[in-house]
Amino acid sequence: MNNLPKSVRRPLPAESIPQFESLFGDRFVTSEAVRNHHGKDESPYPLCPPDAVIFPLNENEVVAAVKLCNRYGIPIVPFGIGSSLEGHVLPIQGGITLDFAQMNRVLSIDAEDFTVTVQPGVIRTQINEEIRHTGLFFPVDPGAHASIGGMTATRASGTNAVRYGTMRENVVSLKVVTAQGDIIRTSSRARKSSSGYDLTHLFVGSEGTLGIIVEITVRVYPLPESITAAVCNFPTLADAVQAVIEIMQSGTAIARVEFMDERAVNAVNRYSKLSLKETPLLLFEFHGSKSLVQEQAEIVQEIAREHGGVDFEWAERPEDRTRLWTARHNSHYSGLQLRPGARSVATDVCVPISRLADCVTATAEDLQHVPFPYTIVGHVGDGNFHVQMLIDPESETEWQMSEEINHRLVHRAIEMDGTCSGEHGVGIHKMEFLKVEHGEAALGLMRMIKHAFDPNNIFNPGKLVSWEA
Amino acid sequence: MNNLPKSVRRPLPAESIPQFESLFGDRFVTSEAVRNHHGKDESPYPLCPPDAVIFPLNENEVVAAVKLCNRYGIPIVPFGIGSSLEGHVLPIQGGITLDFAQMNRVLSIDAEDFTVTVQPGVIRTQINEEIRHTGLFFPVDPGAHASIGGMTATRASGTNAVRYGTMRENVVSLKVVTAQGDIIRTSSRARKSSSGYDLTHLFVGSEGTLGIIVEITVRVYPLPESITAAVCNFPTLADAVQAVIEIMQSGTAIARVEFMDERAVNAVNRYSKLSLKETPLLLFEFHGSKSLVQEQAEIVQEIAREHGGVDFEWAERPEDRTRLWTARHNSHYSGLQLRPGARSVATDVCVPISRLADCVTATAEDLQHVPFPYTIVGHVGDGNFHVQMLIDPESETEWQMSEEINHRLVHRAIEMDGTCSGEHGVGIHKMEFLKVEHGEAALGLMRMIKHAFDPNNIFNPGKLVSWEA
Repeated sequence: MNNLPKSVRRPLPAESIPQFESLFGDRFVTSEAVRNHHGKDESPYPLCPPDAVIFPLNENEVVAAVKLCNRYGIPIVPFGIGSSLEGHVLPIQGGITLDFAQMNRVLSIDAEDFTVTVQPGVIRTQINEEIRHTGLFFPVDPGAHASIGGMTATRASGTNAVRYGTMRENVVSLKVVTAQGDIIRTSSRARKSSSGYDLTHLFVGSEGTLGIIVEITVRVYPLPESITAAVCNFPTLADAVQAVIEIMQSGTAIARVEFMDERAVNAVNRYSKLSLKETPLLLFEFHGSKSLVQEQAEIVQEIAREHGGVDFEWAERPEDRTRLWTARHNSHYSGLQLRPGARSVATDVCVPISRLADCVTATAEDLQHVPFPYTIVGHVGDGNFHVQMLIDPESETEWQMSEEINHRLVHRAIEMDGTCSGEHGVGIHKMEFLKVEHGEAALGLMRMIKHAFDPNNIFNPGKLVSWEA
Repeated sequence: MNNLPKSVRRPLPAESIPQFESLFGDRFVTSEAVRNHHGKDESPYPLCPPDAVIFPLNENEVVAAVKLCNRYGIPIVPFGIGSSLEGHVLPIQGGITLDFAQMNRVLSIDAEDFTVTVQPGVIRTQINEEIRHTGLFFPVDPGAHASIGGMTATRASGTNAVRYGTMRENVVSLKVVTAQGDIIRTSSRARKSSSGYDLTHLFVGSEGTLGIIVEITVRVYPLPESITAAVCNFPTLADAVQAVIEIMQSGTAIARVEFMDERAVNAVNRYSKLSLKETPLLLFEFHGSKSLVQEQAEIVQEIAREHGGVDFEWAERPEDRTRLWTARHNSHYSGLQLRPGARSVATDVCVPISRLADCVTATAEDLQHVPFPYTIVGHVGDGNFHVQMLIDPESETEWQMSEEINHRLVHRAIEMDGTCSGEHGVGIHKMEFLKVEHGEAALGLMRMIKHAFDPNNIFNPGKLVSWEA
C-alpha cells in the first residue's frame, strides 16, 4: 500500500473545541468510528482520520466552521461520499472534515432555463429522480454514486461526456465560502457572460483547496425522444479504438461510446450475470429523434464493420439498456471481484483522440507481463481511459510495479499532448505529475491563486498543488 | 461623448526607450498616426493613444517586451484589430500597445482532433479559409472581423453560440506570457482534464489584464451535411421572443436563432439592399443531415406559427443564406447609417431564457420616448440581446439619456439573475456594474488574482477590475 506523504498534523487547539461544540452540538463528532469513516476513500492509501467531523445543516454553518478554522489555522476538508480515487479527502494534516450528508436538498428546478440548483451533498442519481417529471435529465455519470459537491470539486465526468460534456461544461454557477468567511456566487444563471474573471471554472476542479462549495447550479437536458444502445465486438483493442476515432471524425453526435477489453468484459459478465462475448468491445448509445438515432446507428455500424466489428447487437428495450449500462458503471466493482481482497489501483489519462490507439496499445504492451489481474476500460470518445490493477495489499513488489506502470502511462500521455488525469483529479497521488504536465511557471500561477485565496492554508492542505515550490 | 476615467498616465522612462529601440528596431513606433490608430476602438470614448506601439513577430519578442515593461512598471495593452466595444484597448495609463498584426499565422491544423492552433493576430474568417479543405469550420462569429486573440480576451461569441458555444467553450488551450516573462501553456489538447486549476478559463475573458496571450488552440467542427436558413415575421417583439423560448425548451438543436426588431430590419434592408418585411423577425439556421434539418425546421415552424409567426421564408441556396447572415452580421454598421455622423452606443446583457421576454419588453418600453434612433437585436437563443443607440456625439443630453438606459437595462438584467455583459466584455464602460453583479467579496477574489498575477499592474491597467477596492 502507498505511504501517505510526510505531513505535519496540526492538532485542534484546545480552546477551539468548546467553540465548535457550542456551534454544532452533537453534529461536531470526535468518535473513532466516525473519524475513521472519514479517513478513507477509494484510493490506495492507508487510513488517515480527521480530528473531528462536522455535519453542517446550511451555508451559514459552513461559514461559522470556516471562520473558526481560519482563525486557528485548522485544516478543513469537504467530504461527499468518499468515492474519490486519488486520496482527495484524506486529511493528511489533520483538522476538521466537513461532511455534507445533511446538506442534500435539490433547492430549485428551473426547467425553462435548463438549470437545477442543489446542495453539495445531493447524489447524482437523486437529481434525476427529482426532475423526472420535467422531462429533463442530468447527464454527468461517474462510476460511483458520487455527490454533486465532490463531482464539482474533481471536475468529474463519465460515459455521457462525449455528448454532454463534463462538470466543466455543466456547472453553471456556484456558491462558495471563502477563507474570509464570505459567501460568494461565482456567476449568474445566464447561459453566457463576459463579465469578469471566470470564478466558476476556477472552483470546478479545485478539489476543496480554494474554498468550500455550498451550492451548485448545473445544466440539465431534455430527455431524448429515442435512445438505443448497442454492443459490438472487435478482434483487437487497436481495431476498436480506431473505429472510435473514425466515428468521432465522422461528426456523428454519438451520446456514449465506451471501450472494454476482454478482461473487463469477463469481470462484468461474472459480476452482473451477463453473457457478453469476451473480446474487446465497444458499447454505444444514441440519443435523439427516432430517425436521427437510426441514421447515427447506421453510420456507426458501417465504420465498425470496416474495422472488423462483428455481432452488432442492439438493446432497444429500456430494461436491456439499463442492464448494460449498469454493468458498465459497475466495472470498478466488478473488477474488484477478479481478485477478492485485492487493492484496486485505478489509473486515468486522457490524450488527443489522434493518439488514443497508440497510447492504449503501448499501455497494453506494458501490462503484458504483470503478475496481477487488470482491466482496461475507457470513455474512448473523449480519448480517456483507465487501467484498473488488482494488487495484493501486502505486496510491496506489486505496489511498486503498479506505480511504475502508472508513471509510464502518465508520462506517455503527457508526451502525446495529453493529461495525467481525465476525470479522477489530482488529490495526493497525482501531485508529482503536475510539474511535468503544466511546467514550473504554470504551476507557480496555480500556487499564487492558492496563496491568495487561502493565506492560512486551511482548505484541504497538501492536495493538488504543494504549498511550497 | 463619455469621459475617460481619471487615470494617471505613466510616461515611458527615458532609459527604457533605447532598450525598446534596440530590441524592436522600426517595429517600435512612436509616430502620431500609428499611436492615434491604437487610441480608439468601437466604444463611445474619446481618443486615448499609447506612448508607443510595438509589432512583435513571435512569442519571444512578447517576452522581451513584457520583461522590460515589468521592470519599469510600464503599462502594456494587447491589440487585435480594435473592434472592442467597451474601451478595452484604450491605454488610459499610457505605455505600450502590443499590436499582433504580424503574429497572424495558423500554426497547426489537427483535423483528427478537431483543433486548430493560431497566433493571436489571426482573424476569425482566416481560420475558416485556411481549414476549408479539411471539411471543418470554426463557429464563433462576433459581428466584427475580430482577431482570435481579442475574441479570447473578451470571451466573445456571436450567432452560432446557441449550438456551438462561445469562446469559453471553444478555447482548448492557450500560451500566455506572464508578468515574470515566462511562457506558460494553460492546458494540453486532451478533450477533458481534471489536472489542476483551470488556467485556460481564467485567461479567457481576462481582457489582457493577467498576461499576454500569444497562442490559442480552438475547437473546430465538421461542416454540417446540410444547412438551411429561414426568416419569420412576428406581430410583436414579445411573440418572437416567446417563440424562441419554446423552441429552446423543445430541445431542438437549432444552430442559430437571431432576433431583430422592425428598426433593425429597416436598417439592414437599407444597408444590405434586402427587402425583408419590416416587423419583428427571427432568423433561423439549421445544421445537420438532410433529414434532421427537415425535422428541426418542421418543429420550429410549428412553434413559430403558434406565436403568430408568418411568412416563413426559406433560404436554401448558399448565396441566399450568405446574404442573409452577412446582413445580420453587418447590423452594427447598418445601424450606424440610421443617423450618419452619430456615435453608436451598443449595450449587451444576457438573462436566463425564462426572463428574456420580460427583459426585452421592459427595455423596449424604456426606449419608447428617446429622441434618437435605436435598434434591438439579439442572440436570443442564449438570452442575450443588444440595444444600439445612435446618439449625437455633441449632445451631452443624449449621452446621459443613453447611459441611463444602459444603467437601467443592466440593473434589470442583474435583478433577473443575468449578467451585465453577454459577450462584449467589461473594458472600462462596465466596471462599475461588477460590484452589483458579483458582490464585493467575489470582486475581491478577482482583485486577488490580478494582484498575484500582475504585481506591478502593467497588464492593461484600469480595466475589468479596479486595482484598489
